[in-house]
Amino acid sequence: MTFRYARAYTGPLRAVVFDWAGTLIDFGCRAPAAVFQAIFAEAGVPVTEAEARAPMGLPKRDHIAAVGAAPRVAAAWRAAHGRPFGEADVDALYDVFLPRQIDTVGQYADLIPGVAAAVAAARARGLLIGSTTGYTRDIMDICLARAAEQGLTVDALACAGDLPRGRPGPYLLWRVLTELAVYPPESVVKVGDTPADVEEGLNAGCWVVAVAACGNETGLSEADLAALPEAERAARIERARGVLARAGAHVVIDSTADLPAILDDLSARFARGQRP
Amino acid sequence: MTFRYARAYTGPLRAVVFDWAGTLIDFGCRAPAAVFQAIFAEAGVPVTEAEARAPMGLPKRDHIAAVGAAPRVAAAWRAAHGRPFGEADVDALYDVFLPRQIDTVGQYADLIPGVAAAVAAARARGLLIGSTTGYTRDIMDICLARAAEQGLTVDALACAGDLPRGRPGPYLLWRVLTELAVYPPESVVKVGDTPADVEEGLNAGCWVVAVAACGNETGLSEADLAALPEAERAARIERARGVLARAGAHVVIDSTADLPAILDDLSARFARGQRP
Amino acid sequence: MTFRYARAYTGPLRAVVFDWAGTLIDFGCRAPAAVFQAIFAEAGVPVTEAEARAPMGLPKRDHIAAVGAAPRVAAAWRAAHGRPFGEADVDALYDVFLPRQIDTVGQYADLIPGVAAAVAAARARGLLIGSTTGYTRDIMDICLARAAEQGLTVDALACAGDLPRGRPGPYLLWRVLTELAVYPPESVVKVGDTPADVEEGLNAGCWVVAVAACGNETGLSEADLAALPEAERAARIERARGVLARAGAHVVIDSTADLPAILDDLSARFARGQRP
Amino acid sequence: MTFRYARAYTGPLRAVVFDWAGTLIDFGCRAPAAVFQAIFAEAGVPVTEAEARAPMGLPKRDHIAAVGAAPRVAAAWRAAHGRPFGEADVDALYDVFLPRQIDTVGQYADLIPGVAAAVAAARARGLLIGSTTGYTRDIMDICLARAAEQGLTVDALACAGDLPRGRPGPYLLWRVLTELAVYPPESVVKVGDTPADVEEGLNAGCWVVAVAACGNETGLSEADLAALPEAERAARIERARGVLARAGAHVVIDSTADLPAILDDLSARFARGQRP
Amino acid sequence: MTFRYARAYTGPLRAVVFDWAGTLIDFGCRAPAAVFQAIFAEAGVPVTEAEARAPMGLPKRDHIAAVGAAPRVAAAWRAAHGRPFGEADVDALYDVFLPRQIDTVGQYADLIPGVAAAVAAARARGLLIGSTTGYTRDIMDICLARAAEQGLTVDALACAGDLPRGRPGPYLLWRVLTELAVYPPESVVKVGDTPADVEEGLNAGCWVVAVAACGNETGLSEADLAALPEAERAARIERARGVLARAGAHVVIDSTADLPAILDDLSARFARGQRP
Amino acid sequence: MTFRYARAYTGPLRAVVFDWAGTLIDFGCRAPAAVFQAIFAEAGVPVTEAEARAPMGLPKRDHIAAVGAAPRVAAAWRAAHGRPFGEADVDALYDVFLPRQIDTVGQYADLIPGVAAAVAAARARGLLIGSTTGYTRDIMDICLARAAEQGLTVDALACAGDLPRGRPGPYLLWRVLTELAVYPPESVVKVGDTPADVEEGLNAGCWVVAVAACGNETGLSEADLAALPEAERAARIERARGVLARAGAHVVIDSTADLPAILDDLSARFARGQRP
Repeated sequence: MTFRYARAYTGPLRAVVFDWAGTLIDFGCRAPAAVFQAIFAEAGVPVTEAEARAPMGLPKRDHIAAVGAAPRVAAAWRAAHGRPFGEADVDALYDVFLPRQIDTVGQYADLIPGVAAAVAAARARGLLIGSTTGYTRDIMDICLARAAEQGLTVDALACAGDLPRGRPGPYLLWRVLTELAVYPPESVVKVGDTPADVEEGLNAGCWVVAVAACGNETGLSEADLAALPEAERAARIERARGVLARAGAHVVIDSTADLPAILDDLSARFARGQRP
Repeated sequence: MTFRYARAYTGPLRAVVFDWAGTLIDFGCRAPAAVFQAIFAEAGVPVTEAEARAPMGLPKRDHIAAVGAAPRVAAAWRAAHGRPFGEADVDALYDVFLPRQIDTVGQYADLIPGVAAAVAAARARGLLIGSTTGYTRDIMDICLARAAEQGLTVDALACAGDLPRGRPGPYLLWRVLTELAVYPPESVVKVGDTPADVEEGLNAGCWVVAVAACGNETGLSEADLAALPEAERAARIERARGVLARAGAHVVIDSTADLPAILDDLSARFARGQRP
Repeated sequence: MTFRYARAYTGPLRAVVFDWAGTLIDFGCRAPAAVFQAIFAEAGVPVTEAEARAPMGLPKRDHIAAVGAAPRVAAAWRAAHGRPFGEADVDALYDVFLPRQIDTVGQYADLIPGVAAAVAAARARGLLIGSTTGYTRDIMDICLARAAEQGLTVDALACAGDLPRGRPGPYLLWRVLTELAVYPPESVVKVGDTPADVEEGLNAGCWVVAVAACGNETGLSEADLAALPEAERAARIERARGVLARAGAHVVIDSTADLPAILDDLSARFARGQRP
Repeated sequence: MTFRYARAYTGPLRAVVFDWAGTLIDFGCRAPAAVFQAIFAEAGVPVTEAEARAPMGLPKRDHIAAVGAAPRVAAAWRAAHGRPFGEADVDALYDVFLPRQIDTVGQYADLIPGVAAAVAAARARGLLIGSTTGYTRDIMDICLARAAEQGLTVDALACAGDLPRGRPGPYLLWRVLTELAVYPPESVVKVGDTPADVEEGLNAGCWVVAVAACGNETGLSEADLAALPEAERAARIERARGVLARAGAHVVIDSTADLPAILDDLSARFARGQRP
Repeated sequence: MTFRYARAYTGPLRAVVFDWAGTLIDFGCRAPAAVFQAIFAEAGVPVTEAEARAPMGLPKRDHIAAVGAAPRVAAAWRAAHGRPFGEADVDALYDVFLPRQIDTVGQYADLIPGVAAAVAAARARGLLIGSTTGYTRDIMDICLARAAEQGLTVDALACAGDLPRGRPGPYLLWRVLTELAVYPPESVVKVGDTPADVEEGLNAGCWVVAVAACGNETGLSEADLAALPEAERAARIERARGVLARAGAHVVIDSTADLPAILDDLSARFARGQRP
Repeated sequence: MTFRYARAYTGPLRAVVFDWAGTLIDFGCRAPAAVFQAIFAEAGVPVTEAEARAPMGLPKRDHIAAVGAAPRVAAAWRAAHGRPFGEADVDALYDVFLPRQIDTVGQYADLIPGVAAAVAAARARGLLIGSTTGYTRDIMDICLARAAEQGLTVDALACAGDLPRGRPGPYLLWRVLTELAVYPPESVVKVGDTPADVEEGLNAGCWVVAVAACGNETGLSEADLAALPEAERAARIERARGVLARAGAHVVIDSTADLPAILDDLSARFARGQRP
């Protein structure tokens, strides 16, 4: 007799791993967007906000490289500088980026409304709280301090720069799960606001919840979003939902504040034998 | 319109990650078995070879703890020592284990027949070669040197002790994939000879191939296995196959030498949309 | 990295599309059955009620052709007429059928009990109400008028003859969905009482609910069905259920009146990711 | 005993339905892109080529509305005109668009290389050839004539304007299948070059093959694409592949010329019981 | 950690279990059909051949009960006899049936062409050959002798009457598998020509192959079937295929002679993890 | 048009089939364990309790053969007797076993706490109660009498020896289902305490519920289990759960007393279309 035995995890969720900007803090993910636009403009190649935001979620050096590699920007750079956008340009821009980001990130570090309660609800279910980010650790020192002032702490954090490669690879997430001593991946929910976040979670084998209205894909402060005409606000969020769903998010919600209700739904999927 | 988009990897296999003793070297996984029996006997609590081998694949300190926690052994220890088997006992035995293992491991480090060709075949398909082990790094230094003499090198290695926790957790495997820069897990095949190996691979989301005849579950040298009567040899291997299949291995083969043919089969499963 | 993204609809049900005779009106689907028996008998080839009803749901001209093509009838026709049943015979019988049906259909146009409430319940869930039929439009003019008198109207109707081909093809159903501007098909429930209805729905990719007791497969008026001995009534309905289930209906209910409860069940299947 | 019988189609593929610009003719889908940019620029609100191309595949009037509704363009229009972009603006631009497109479309109507052979191969498998388009019928009259000169004819065509609504709805595709008398949808392959094409096919329940290099998502003439540095060309096509895969295409190929090999693969999926 | 391990059989096919009349012998399954028609006619309630054949495959006493319970026949019996068709009537008819069947069955016991080769091919794959039947053992004694004369023997046989209940229950099939010492059910293929055969196989958890042209559902001798006009022959077989497919057969073939090719296909489904 | 119709049972659960020792009676399954150890010791080859219990659930003669075939015992037998353990040895030991078991089984026949209520709850859902056992019928006569005294009766029983082969084959279970007239297998739940029980159920196509704490895999009397330190008790039960889950049990519970709650869960899986 020859048989195969397919193992499936039937236990509870064990951890949630959050992205930071646009997910826990900085409604609209505005801190890095402004700096990216500024440094390209200063280099003589202005980029639109959409172009500046497209690779959001990647480590910031990779982000600069991705903006410069987008077809229109690549052509514009060639036109402005007489040579293709290269590694030296990435380095030069990144050298400008880092201090600029450190200077400004603290101004954008308010918790997204409802985040403290959502994290508390996750802890109340027995979940550990991890986090990963495209920010470097020195930028995160500022964010962690600002978050702590507002009552938010996490059990683990992995930053761009802690490992040779970051998102969309699963490396930072694996490191956080190693630190939390949590497995299997199907017991973990990644929460983030960008396609890079979604892919990080999928590439690790985790459930992925994406937040559409409070993050990079809508890209407006809470006040600016509220000020839009109803139809335009709905259209912007709907577009953001589409981008995140197409990246493969298992669930898309408006705000991190909506997470607690989703955790029940994901637990029910386990009971039915679904896998992320 | 609301839609969900379920992402599935459709690319090629990208890496194989091997266990060492019983998988790449040491037919029968005999090096550690003998030492475990010896140290328990010296402590006044003899254990059977089956008891000594049961937790094989774990980091060696965890292995000692697991042997002592088995119901019969725990009772015997209590009878012999007048107190339960505890952390201090584990430490004491481990202190004896390590130098003993270092002394003897080199004698058991012959490549399992066919391993060199199987690894070469995997490389020829473009796969990277990783490895994890329950041995510590100082034991592995000896094994790596002996393997290199026989023509085998690997692209990455994570050892028990490199991280706070090892198998059956996926941590060492994640570390190897981080070093190899390989993802998603469904592009990776873990190959090992113990339930702990199988679980390490499943817990990381990888395909798992288990080797039944050349490893711990059969537990005999190549010569001793060949010397058995045909029926008894078949029964022993069949029992080993059952143990590994029940641990959840996707495929069980007799020897690591049989791996190349299996890689085609796993690739075909991808094409049909199966996941590990 | 190569990935596939499998899209799945996760929204609500959007429309129900009903058949008419045996589903919305004419308990037992008796109006056409009687006429088919009459015209074959007048042509010298009497057919049983079962033979007359077998292809029910098809456009009526196709229905006549199907009755004549059934093995026993084909042989009887050859015996009676000295030549096979051919296109000219179909035309001749259809020319007799149409006025006969128009004369009598109004007598069989009472709503099936509970239909008005079931349609109202569907509308209350926000569903649009479509309909298709094997009747031609001039027959339907009578039915629509009689239904309206009893309080039933629909948002769209496609009749045999509106397109070159009808059931079991999905063409009429597609036309109704085009008129209602509803998609994808998995947001639609087809309700009917014949295998041809079931197939029309499946061939369009819709959910299919079949009604067993009030339609053609049981084939008795409400009074005649109630008059049967309990065991015989149960057996007749069970047989009808079997025919409709084997045609591939996702759910079989006794009467259109039972539809509302089923809609919840179908919505729950969506939530679990099932597709029609 | 109660059983459910889930029907699955096990027959052959029966039809392929192609999009026109970017799929059968007009490598790079350049004809409409240029006109859209021109009319917005003339209205005082210049748009980038990416903005002009984003909704490609929709009926052209809907396309104009979608460009004007994109967040950046909507804001720019408000800034330039002092009022939101509205229905009257869409009408006005569309009135300019249509004659301009008719004037120029013939210059872009060369068959994409390999299309004639791919269509012939599909016919040789017994498949019918349908087509849908976002062009109106008067624009298509020019394209059909130009295609016929090059040896390409189709068995059915549905154009924007033939029905009240077009893509991403499945209405035009259903109309073509009605004309071809082909069902069920799982026997049909939709081939197109835009997300709107992919969605039209999915919304009808068909298999969807997307073409990445020869269509709108790469957006360059064959010569311009060939002239790019190798890495930039690969990156552009990879980006296009990603957009089409994320829309839910079952298979993404470089060019319509690559279709024949894919048809075997899709047929094999049938044999394994997969559904689109 | 909590896991579930879903076991799946991955071994080879181990046995084929055939029905007798209409599957191994008696092309058209004519032996019992004629007797059923005769005994009902003699009882004053003539039945059509279709009515006589409908429950074919059941134990013969159950078959008589099922014919009498069909709505039209039940009504006719009541009309003719002034009382419902009851158990005493079944007994009386069965008493007539048995000797009549014994007298005539030998005349219909020619092997269906190709059966001997198909059984030999199955044996050559290592499959055991079982059989079940709605005939009683004294009828089967005649059939077995006649089959042996033509070179056909089986490894096991269970007859109606060997157990209190027969088809559509799986009892006879389980008894045969017990005698053959074969399990699990997914290693077994049931082959038969009636819905009752199909259900017996499904109810035991086996693969089911139905034969459409040589059995009861087409219901003609090989000569009579060959004498039909091509279109009528094709239509009759197509109708039979539909009946058997709708009963849930995994594969429908024309004749038992076509079985060998199907066995490869079923084995391939195993390899893909499909279950009956 | 060619379609396949995959039948799925959608009705209720219809029967539960229990194992006896370790499941209905004899907490810890101690009656046979002690006898097996005694007879091997008396034959000069002492075996551990784990070795004596490993094949539990098999017919007792097969059990003796399996103990003697285990690698360590086989070697010890060879050492002690100068010849391999053979059929004559099995017979000799079995001749000793039977009277010894008959003498002692009555002392171990107390119902496991909660069993009477669990069986009553199953009956209250309309389920029939079957049973199979590795005991022979003369041993079971004693157990049945003792169970009846405590208020437990079953509707059917098949014993080792009733058929030529028993577990892990499904033969005894099929015989019980034949006697109960229950099918399909997916309407049946097998409950047992050993891997052999789990396999019997899976090999028949039934749902399988395994009991971990009250049966052979924990192997202690209720009092002894309660007397263990909490951690050791939990570890022992967890180990038992792992063994039973790896054998493929669909659900593992602590005690037969916990069955009623599980029946709701299994019924819900039906509703979702899952199969055992």
